[in-house]
Amino acid sequence: MKAIVYDGPHSVKVDEVDDARIEGPQDAVIRITTTNICGSDLHMYEGRTDVEEGTVFGHENMGIVEAVGDAVERIEVGDRVSVPFNVACGTCRNCNAGWTSFCQRVNPNEGMVGSAYGYAMMGPWRGGQAEYMRVPWADFNLLRLPEGTDKEDDYTMLSDIFPTGYHGTEMAGVGPGDSVVVYGAGPVGLMAAHSAFLRGASRVWVADKEQDRLDLAAQIDAEPIDIADVDPVEFVLDATSGVGADCGVEAVGYQAHDHTGEEHPELVLDNLVNSVKVPGGIGVVGVYVPEDPGANGELAQEGRIPFQFGQFFTKGQAMGTGQAPVKRYNRQLRDLITAGRANPSWIVSHRVGLDEAPDAYERFDTRENGWTKVLLDPAA
Amino acid sequence: MKAIVYDGPHSVKVDEVDDARIEGPQDAVIRITTTNICGSDLHMYEGRTDVEEGTVFGHENMGIVEAVGDAVERIEVGDRVSVPFNVACGTCRNCNAGWTSFCQRVNPNEGMVGSAYGYAMMGPWRGGQAEYMRVPWADFNLLRLPEGTDKEDDYTMLSDIFPTGYHGTEMAGVGPGDSVVVYGAGPVGLMAAHSAFLRGASRVWVADKEQDRLDLAAQIDAEPIDIADVDPVEFVLDATSGVGADCGVEAVGYQAHDHTGEEHPELVLDNLVNSVKVPGGIGVVGVYVPEDPGANGELAQEGRIPFQFGQFFTKGQAMGTGQAPVKRYNRQLRDLITAGRANPSWIVSHRVGLDEAPDAYERFDTRENGWTKVLLDPAA
Amino acid sequence: MKAIVYDGPHSVKVDEVDDARIEGPQDAVIRITTTNICGSDLHMYEGRTDVEEGTVFGHENMGIVEAVGDAVERIEVGDRVSVPFNVACGTCRNCNAGWTSFCQRVNPNEGMVGSAYGYAMMGPWRGGQAEYMRVPWADFNLLRLPEGTDKEDDYTMLSDIFPTGYHGTEMAGVGPGDSVVVYGAGPVGLMAAHSAFLRGASRVWVADKEQDRLDLAAQIDAEPIDIADVDPVEFVLDATSGVGADCGVEAVGYQAHDHTGEEHPELVLDNLVNSVKVPGGIGVVGVYVPEDPGANGELAQEGRIPFQFGQFFTKGQAMGTGQAPVKRYNRQLRDLITAGRANPSWIVSHRVGLDEAPDAYERFDTRENGWTKVLLDPAA
Amino acid sequence: MKAIVYDGPHSVKVDEVDDARIEGPQDAVIRITTTNICGSDLHMYEGRTDVEEGTVFGHENMGIVEAVGDAVERIEVGDRVSVPFNVACGTCRNCNAGWTSFCQRVNPNEGMVGSAYGYAMMGPWRGGQAEYMRVPWADFNLLRLPEGTDKEDDYTMLSDIFPTGYHGTEMAGVGPGDSVVVYGAGPVGLMAAHSAFLRGASRVWVADKEQDRLDLAAQIDAEPIDIADVDPVEFVLDATSGVGADCGVEAVGYQAHDHTGEEHPELVLDNLVNSVKVPGGIGVVGVYVPEDPGANGELAQEGRIPFQFGQFFTKGQAMGTGQAPVKRYNRQLRDLITAGRANPSWIVSHRVGLDEAPDAYERFDTRENGWTKVLLDPAA
Repeated sequence: MKAIVYDGPHSVKVDEVDDARIEGPQDAVIRITTTNICGSDLHMYEGRTDVEEGTVFGHENMGIVEAVGDAVERIEVGDRVSVPFNVACGTCRNCNAGWTSFCQRVNPNEGMVGSAYGYAMMGPWRGGQAEYMRVPWADFNLLRLPEGTDKEDDYTMLSDIFPTGYHGTEMAGVGPGDSVVVYGAGPVGLMAAHSAFLRGASRVWVADKEQDRLDLAAQIDAEPIDIADVDPVEFVLDATSGVGADCGVEAVGYQAHDHTGEEHPELVLDNLVNSVKVPGGIGVVGVYVPEDPGANGELAQEGRIPFQFGQFFTKGQAMGTGQAPVKRYNRQLRDLITAGRANPSWIVSHRVGLDEAPDAYERFDTRENGWTKVLLDPAA
Repeated sequence: MKAIVYDGPHSVKVDEVDDARIEGPQDAVIRITTTNICGSDLHMYEGRTDVEEGTVFGHENMGIVEAVGDAVERIEVGDRVSVPFNVACGTCRNCNAGWTSFCQRVNPNEGMVGSAYGYAMMGPWRGGQAEYMRVPWADFNLLRLPEGTDKEDDYTMLSDIFPTGYHGTEMAGVGPGDSVVVYGAGPVGLMAAHSAFLRGASRVWVADKEQDRLDLAAQIDAEPIDIADVDPVEFVLDATSGVGADCGVEAVGYQAHDHTGEEHPELVLDNLVNSVKVPGGIGVVGVYVPEDPGANGELAQEGRIPFQFGQFFTKGQAMGTGQAPVKRYNRQLRDLITAGRANPSWIVSHRVGLDEAPDAYERFDTRENGWTKVLLDPAA
Repeated sequence: MKAIVYDGPHSVKVDEVDDARIEGPQDAVIRITTTNICGSDLHMYEGRTDVEEGTVFGHENMGIVEAVGDAVERIEVGDRVSVPFNVACGTCRNCNAGWTSFCQRVNPNEGMVGSAYGYAMMGPWRGGQAEYMRVPWADFNLLRLPEGTDKEDDYTMLSDIFPTGYHGTEMAGVGPGDSVVVYGAGPVGLMAAHSAFLRGASRVWVADKEQDRLDLAAQIDAEPIDIADVDPVEFVLDATSGVGADCGVEAVGYQAHDHTGEEHPELVLDNLVNSVKVPGGIGVVGVYVPEDPGANGELAQEGRIPFQFGQFFTKGQAMGTGQAPVKRYNRQLRDLITAGRANPSWIVSHRVGLDEAPDAYERFDTRENGWTKVLLDPAA
Repeated sequence: MKAIVYDGPHSVKVDEVDDARIEGPQDAVIRITTTNICGSDLHMYEGRTDVEEGTVFGHENMGIVEAVGDAVERIEVGDRVSVPFNVACGTCRNCNAGWTSFCQRVNPNEGMVGSAYGYAMMGPWRGGQAEYMRVPWADFNLLRLPEGTDKEDDYTMLSDIFPTGYHGTEMAGVGPGDSVVVYGAGPVGLMAAHSAFLRGASRVWVADKEQDRLDLAAQIDAEPIDIADVDPVEFVLDATSGVGADCGVEAVGYQAHDHTGEEHPELVLDNLVNSVKVPGGIGVVGVYVPEDPGANGELAQEGRIPFQFGQFFTKGQAMGTGQAPVKRYNRQLRDLITAGRANPSWIVSHRVGLDEAPDAYERFDTRENGWTKVLLDPAA
């Protein structure tokens, strides 16, 4: 079958790989109908991980169930399904507690928990940027979608970024009436803004420096803050009589840059601490890593981020972090899409066939204007 | 000053009463700009309580602060404020816990807690259907509103029915993605439907038999169920593949009637138990009373409601009840109104002067078509 | 193998039945080391259900894993395990939400959810009062215990009554400092009292009329209320300056009797409403049934319980109900037992072999003094 | 009246000051019966703040109400009361939400919220290490205690350190069955350990290097970790099969030292991140400051703590911080003391008269062996 494989730094190619097949009694094989390129795929694409050449990428997947193993009972061949990016066993303590992002049985690397399809260091699970993929523990992992092909570009957001943005708002404690500042207007930040409104936020600000992304924020009535022009902390304090936003979401990660382009991993956290009220909640879904050998300086290399912790404490703030447990939210978000009350596809800029994926990767990686979210369609 | 006073069963009149004035150091006097007639005023109006003639009605009040006592520090003369219907001291255990609806220091009747302005058995607090009213513990009770006169008909909903409807959804546990069935499309039921959407509900059904109210429900994209035509339990089960709604809200109360007009106080609770899923949450804001001497049968007279408790248990449902602690929600709902994301005034049918109040009471009491919510404007 | 089977009203016998065996890839077979007689077994024993003769009883089971199916990965042969009484698939919506007591895939009866081993109307799952039992979805259902035989009589409480009593306190919202009144000093009520203290309760009252049970309550520093002598509502109000207990737990069920021995299904609920504060939480784990053909009067036959709902509403109380999702609590309670901080075995009165089970059933059913909790040991 | 006043670095003296008196209608004057020296008093004592000479210290106060202002209604002369260290107005948004530690009306310093008696930068409120003290907003701030003098040394812990330790466990999310690691066995850390058990923890470790404090931890069945001897991270991981503790509490603060005595402000946070499980909760009640001019290095001077944030994110941990809102917990903890289920006085080492306070300050400041907690008794 055809798949997108890693071909060394800044290169992916379409290749023939072994067919996905049932390997164990709880497996399913999915015929992919949509699979998205994620911003985190670019970390591997840019050669900054130790992912091996030949690896099949893709952790944002949906499709039709093609085959199931002997022990699969709930899911049936022909079901239209969304595949959460976290691979999870469904029976360990963390899965029991709804923390599928930290499944204790799924990552064979020493001392590591949690896993994902087609991702460096995240276990042996082949990605879904391909014609087919294998899904283990299918009854537990797969979310059934309404039959047919309706709202395909909305439902495809359920595998990762919509629940991930939502998780940011959950950890930040966003509730009805709250004001929320989101740092980062990439796909995850935009989903956080959308989620904040779904949870009843009264006002949402989104800070970024890319105009195309800020325009997308404005389309859902979030208030864009162009950090190329203004200081976001001052902006939010001005808008709140000096009090600050009720909640904040970090959707940038450790590669934060200041307006001059210099990397400042503590910058966004500082901005959050200073623009969120006393006391207020902060949800961090932008990725920070324990080791970053290529970073500037010893602290950053060890994943130490010297943000204003003293101020954070004095303001009595709370912070939640980490990868989203997609399965905790995807059913509810699916129902909002089905009812027409959530419409995450507004950020989609392109839907292309697998053969166009290498070109799409390059344009998305260079943040070519207007390439905000790319979907791959193996049948195209 | 002029006020609306009770003049015996089915009669209120405009009368001259003593001016509202500062009586203690924590008091404020409010010049009323809007005061609403509430469905619960009709209980007194119809003569079914032991309220005395001459009582000034009105617990849904807003206005401008005219004067404050010596110990009032936070609130200032000239502030535009909403007055929660619950009178609360701010320092007892229940107030500390946010249960201002059950203030332990405010009701002088033996063994009773909680209080309201202008209401039978709810303490000595004169109502606000008048030119002015006195508010005790002003710093604690009053909610500041944006200056001016903007959105007056929205903000006036903050004193009672908007937080009351919201409380129903809170007790029912409505969260993003949930489906919700609301019984009763009166003002409180409509506010519950509005609140459910603000909290992220995917679908909301509203069951009633009055067409004008069902039309109002439909205006906010709730799905009306005309119980004159269809069985609401069957309707909801059909719409949910037999599973039932995630949550339910009771906004009818003990005077529920079946479609033939006979009083069946257990009817709405039965419908909730049977149309809400296993397990699901139910919030009861429709009023039930401990004693109802005029009711049919001994059980109802003692406030005993023989609903299907065995089914309720078997389905593992949970139920919250009681009057809303307005202050727990009114700030957040105010901010949603200010931001334009909540618009509770869509249910307002009439805004009239005090002199027209007697007529308005009569029309509202007989449920004259189109008289869904009446606001009184002392300056009109 | 040997098993306890139903032999008609008021009779069980030890019989030879087909060996428990692996029937599907997710099954395990457990060699039973301890299996308890539960108060709810007596409902079947007394002939008040339509359970068939020959049915193997037993839903409170623990033992050693003897064999596993091909798809079982987490649990291994030789593991010492506790078997939650609820059979649950681990992949339906309710299981995902932690409501294993309402698994949607496990009960083949039309419209019913939730299941149990060896119980009337609760699915086809044979009980564990036997030498061996089969457990489906073994990786999901089984809780691993420390190796060996230590604390066997404590760990055996994890399959049902300890989590069930705990669930009562959870639904009642018991937190540190709270006072709690528990109605019913049977095994579940005693476990609720124990759980209340584990959750930080300051005071716990337990109301019953059986002296041996009240003595057990006193052994853990709960305060017994002998309802043969005193009115429990007055007692609790006196002890709380008229305010009432913060929380209440119902551990009696629909067969409540007054002190004259007459059945009054609304009695305990009335007592809870009247002895719990405004507003306070009530958890109902005593069983109420949707239909009870043998009850006195039409209301009780339809599962309608005419308790003081008007008072319940006026006091703004909340109530949670239903069978406990054992798996939500059993790991934490196991850890408390292991650490020596929970000791639920204090209620155990007898541990006997299977051959003595018929006699034990009879003595437990007649509430012979001192027969508070009976454990069966197939190896004895 | 006599009071303890600051007399320059490393010196306090007993001095005559103006009598405490009613200054406003909501004030009370308290005759102090017990007032504790707090570890945070030592920050001022050591001359590391800009507190003025002549300042009366003391924010851990209890006593008898001597006089009340005209608007005080709930509290009466003669009441025995505990005074929360946070001064709070009771009517601002943060107070309404239960965040009395961040009262928005009480601190006159520009941009600051929250206040305390007798503390640098925390507002104009004179301390209680004196014969009398004034308490503003008395009805809101004061907690009534049982009449008499019973359990004085327990109840005196309610003004600060017992609720503060408890707040650490609340923010860490400690629940029944959890294992908890507490860093720091000073008074607050010991109260956190006590609180963890009250909330149902199965195991509690307390890490410190002072033997007298570790002995106190062991007295309540917490497991001491002597960090002079062992690495606490390894110790906890060993004790939990490599998983880590469920929850962690920081009770050390920014002046953390490694075992060689060098200041390492990131050390305790690193230890928490590494010894708490994936995902787990961390509560920080040890104090971190926004500016620390005397610290080593620029980062620490700006309150920037370069702990392992990348690891924190990867483990999906959550962290709550800040000063405790005493009033949220003190009533419940009082009830636990009254019922004999909490006994925080076990840490008290000395109870002395005001005249002995200068000596006691010196011994406590130098951590003289056995001086773990000092109470002052103005009547001694």
